Amino acid sequence: MTRPPIDPATALPDGAGRIAVVLLSGGLDSATTLAMALAAGYEAHTVAFDYGQKHRSELLAAQRVSEALGAGSHRIVHLDAAAFSGSALTDADIAVPETPSEGIPVTYVPARNTIFLAHALGMAEILGSTDLVLGVNAVDYSGYPDCRPAFIEAFEAMANLATRSAVEGGERLRIHAPLMHLGKAEIVASGALLGVDYGLTVSCYQADADGRACGRCDSCRFRREGFQAAGIADPTRYQP
Amino acid sequence: MTRPPIDPATALPDGAGRIAVVLLSGGLDSATTLAMALAAGYEAHTVAFDYGQKHRSELLAAQRVSEALGAGSHRIVHLDAAAFSGSALTDADIAVPETPSEGIPVTYVPARNTIFLAHALGMAEILGSTDLVLGVNAVDYSGYPDCRPAFIEAFEAMANLATRSAVEGGERLRIHAPLMHLGKAEIVASGALLGVDYGLTVSCYQADADGRACGRCDSCRFRREGFQAAGIADPTRYQP
Repeated sequence: MTRPPIDPATALPDGAGRIAVVLLSGGLDSATTLAMALAAGYEAHTVAFDYGQKHRSELLAAQRVSEALGAGSHRIVHLDAAAFSGSALTDADIAVPETPSEGIPVTYVPARNTIFLAHALGMAEILGSTDLVLGVNAVDYSGYPDCRPAFIEAFEAMANLATRSAVEGGERLRIHAPLMHLGKAEIVASGALLGVDYGLTVSCYQADADGRACGRCDSCRFRREGFQAAGIADPTRYQP
Repeated sequence: MTRPPIDPATALPDGAGRIAVVLLSGGLDSATTLAMALAAGYEAHTVAFDYGQKHRSELLAAQRVSEALGAGSHRIVHLDAAAFSGSALTDADIAVPETPSEGIPVTYVPARNTIFLAHALGMAEILGSTDLVLGVNAVDYSGYPDCRPAFIEAFEAMANLATRSAVEGGERLRIHAPLMHLGKAEIVASGALLGVDYGLTVSCYQADADGRACGRCDSCRFRREGFQAAGIADPTRYQP
């Protein structure tokens, strides 16, 4: 790590007396953002998305993480799987690659973060929240277009024109992406400082039903290297 | 009408050889946009959303309209109804108002158009389309925030950062809202010129199972006044 360690308790602005909607995938990154939101004082409500992903065990992991860290509630939003075809993460006919590729990989899911954030925006409006928190990262990531800072900024601008609050002069909606510029090792170190049990999380794109990781996909690779670089024991359970 | 009638066949740019995704609610406006897209030469694929709306007959109407006008395909995307609470259109405990109100009415559904457009964006990416068409209107409308031009422009800007095509230098995605600045009478007149059978459409927020309208809600009122002002016979079937 070339930068000094961040203070993960101040990765988000003060959340005392405020409600946040935290997008939780069940993986390492989003578990860390939930811990950061809680450390900042937010009342955090988590949401996971069932979009027909092959790695179903991440949905169970999201539920475990939400409960273990102490979120106010957890909701699974069921999305129409037919709308998410054409990705290695959803389509039985497309294999998850086990070697890094050039450009945007086949694990990209069309418009996924746009759809997730749109639903989270609706949830936030219903809960009276103007803080969305998500764990996108533009350093150790797979090159997805909807993980980049410019995308998040554009979504925030759009969201501030989309809601009742936007018209009625309510508080401005903010999208927090506290991991955006952190390397995987910094993320792991931050979560460890906040007491996240990464043994509860599942990052693998093709985890088995027990949540055991393949150890070979992009997501496993970034995760493993993160623990190594942070000098923290890797609690990931791998398939035999 | 203070403006000259528009030529509805040129309400959209030339669509010859192009694919469009058209959001279809089953109502008068979106049926007109589908007719405009087809008249412009697009291969139009329609999508309707089942979000637990009380007025279920609009979903049947969308299917009828898609087939009658000759869309390439029709898809119903099922959304998680629990994510759409708190509106008179979805919540059994909130009545649809039958007199006009100040401000944004209780029929507003949190983040609805954001969620619909997000899914349409995913569909477009899968179909190889960069043209989304929707029937929002900021003249004879209920004051929803997500029907305003600024919202549509912001969504378009965001969408052009969200997709694989956005990163790989593909064609720019466009959101077409050809009805945005038309009054209801102009919309009705345009659709009539294009041969739309408005008897197939259902606009009412509390239509019965047979698609018969209440005649009293905001949506019925705008529709009825539109036919009257256009001097076109109103084919709407009303509840006895």
